[in-house]
Amino acid sequence: MKLSPLFWPIKFKNNLIYILDETLLPQKVSYIKVKDYQGACRAIKEMKTRAVGQVILVFYIFLMVIRQKKAKKDLLPTLKKVAKAINATRPTLSFKFLTDMVLGWAQSGAPLEKFIFSFLEILKNKRIQQAEDVAKLIDNQDVILTHCNISGLMPLIGDLCRKHNKKITFFVTETRPYLQGARLTAWELKRAGFDVTVITDSMVAQVMSEGKINKVIVGADHLARNGDIANKIGTYQIALLAKHFHLPFYVLCPPVSGARTGGDIKIEIRPDKELLEYRGMRLAAKGVKGYYPAFDVTPNNLITKHIYLGINK
Amino acid sequence: MKLSPLFWPIKFKNNLIYILDETLLPQKVSYIKVKDYQGACRAIKEMKTRAVGQVILVFYIFLMVIRQKKAKKDLLPTLKKVAKAINATRPTLSFKFLTDMVLGWAQSGAPLEKFIFSFLEILKNKRIQQAEDVAKLIDNQDVILTHCNISGLMPLIGDLCRKHNKKITFFVTETRPYLQGARLTAWELKRAGFDVTVITDSMVAQVMSEGKINKVIVGADHLARNGDIANKIGTYQIALLAKHFHLPFYVLCPPVSGARTGGDIKIEIRPDKELLEYRGMRLAAKGVKGYYPAFDVTPNNLITKHIYLGINK
Repeated sequence: MKLSPLFWPIKFKNNLIYILDETLLPQKVSYIKVKDYQGACRAIKEMKTRAVGQVILVFYIFLMVIRQKKAKKDLLPTLKKVAKAINATRPTLSFKFLTDMVLGWAQSGAPLEKFIFSFLEILKNKRIQQAEDVAKLIDNQDVILTHCNISGLMPLIGDLCRKHNKKITFFVTETRPYLQGARLTAWELKRAGFDVTVITDSMVAQVMSEGKINKVIVGADHLARNGDIANKIGTYQIALLAKHFHLPFYVLCPPVSGARTGGDIKIEIRPDKELLEYRGMRLAAKGVKGYYPAFDVTPNNLITKHIYLGINK
Repeated sequence: MKLSPLFWPIKFKNNLIYILDETLLPQKVSYIKVKDYQGACRAIKEMKTRAVGQVILVFYIFLMVIRQKKAKKDLLPTLKKVAKAINATRPTLSFKFLTDMVLGWAQSGAPLEKFIFSFLEILKNKRIQQAEDVAKLIDNQDVILTHCNISGLMPLIGDLCRKHNKKITFFVTETRPYLQGARLTAWELKRAGFDVTVITDSMVAQVMSEGKINKVIVGADHLARNGDIANKIGTYQIALLAKHFHLPFYVLCPPVSGARTGGDIKIEIRPDKELLEYRGMRLAAKGVKGYYPAFDVTPNNLITKHIYLGINK
């Protein structure tokens, strides 16, 4: 079973970090080589990698710095400086949970490299387990609708279904404005040999009403303590439509966050330019404004089943 | 009150027809000059004009041909030839109702030019009346969500509200894949001085849940006898979401068609290239397929009120 490049989009080799440049996908599978933590932070800032890629990258940054630093004695001040730089990369995204974890290990005198490798190994196995948990929910001949991209888990779910002789096919919303569905998910499913059909975000009700979809599976960026989730904008209305058409709506969740309910999750409003233009080409009429909430909240009661990652904050 | 160029996108002057090239909007307001019926049919085929523009164009084609033909005696065979050419332009769209009407007038010996001008005058007045009927349903401070484009009626509705001291603002879905919302509706509303915000089709539930929208107003391409309508893909799910959020959903209707219910309306499936590419640029991963139903059916029970055109087939 070959994993999608998006499942583990960061490589660590000879003390260098290689970052899959997701902004160039699907036209080009290209890795950015970074040799210092500043370069790695720049890649986060410029959104070269997303989601799980950023998590892996944070750990590899510490690993690289530890190995670069010959004298292990005064490591802590260096690690603190690096943690600060990582935390500053994206004001709306919090890496503090991760950097605090590594600083905690360092302060307790734990064997750092070993702890980092072990954490990443757990993360990898828990993600595979999560895909297995989802695959069990799928029936032969199912047609799955998905939205945005869940970092290599969708082709893995498909592979696990294949292993159990369950033939499944996919519909993918293009996921405006960044087109992660059309660019990333459709690409990784196609290269893994699956039948995948792209639709615009406006076609969800139509394909559901035609009876083309059996199940909806999406990821999540946040999981509140009451089971509400926040995910890429558009998820909420798909959940509402799934309920209307009596389709199960499954969510692959990250570790539970500090938010009590979805109402506590702050929705990031991004620059409207990102939806009014595409790769520098103006899409909308000149002078009009746009509104771009990057995420929306799907309440717990629209979710048929949460599939947990099994790593707790 | 200045009408949007999209309200009456075809001009007839000195026996020449000028067609507003909607494919160049909003970058350029440019009219294509045609001097024979073949050129006009080509413009329909190439989708230079849509909806009401095509209706007006059909009548101007006949008018031009009548005036070009000096001997009025043997006009009928010429008109039949022209009707046949018009009917052949778009296999999925029926202009036969319109061309049959003109041929019927010709056969009955009616004064053709007078009848054509009179029909167009009625059409124009009925459309203005339709906008007035909608404006009456709008309250001061309303925020209207609309989808796709209703050929100049939306700025007219806004103007009529302004006339009655009702201040309204607009949200417009970009309307993938052709972006009629972002390109045409946002453009004509902005140039008429309205506050207009573009969102992607995936943001409808989010803006509704934020309480940003008061009313939804859309057009329709077909009206079945039971009140079901067919309109641009995406309309159906907006209607479902409007119901969920208890928002009125108003539809500006064309004359009722032969369809008994929405189920009788044939949904045109267009080439997937039109959603996988944009202006020659590949959007989706190479090799993946798309599915592009161009319209969807909104059932009568989701429509708060039909606003009729007042012209019957």
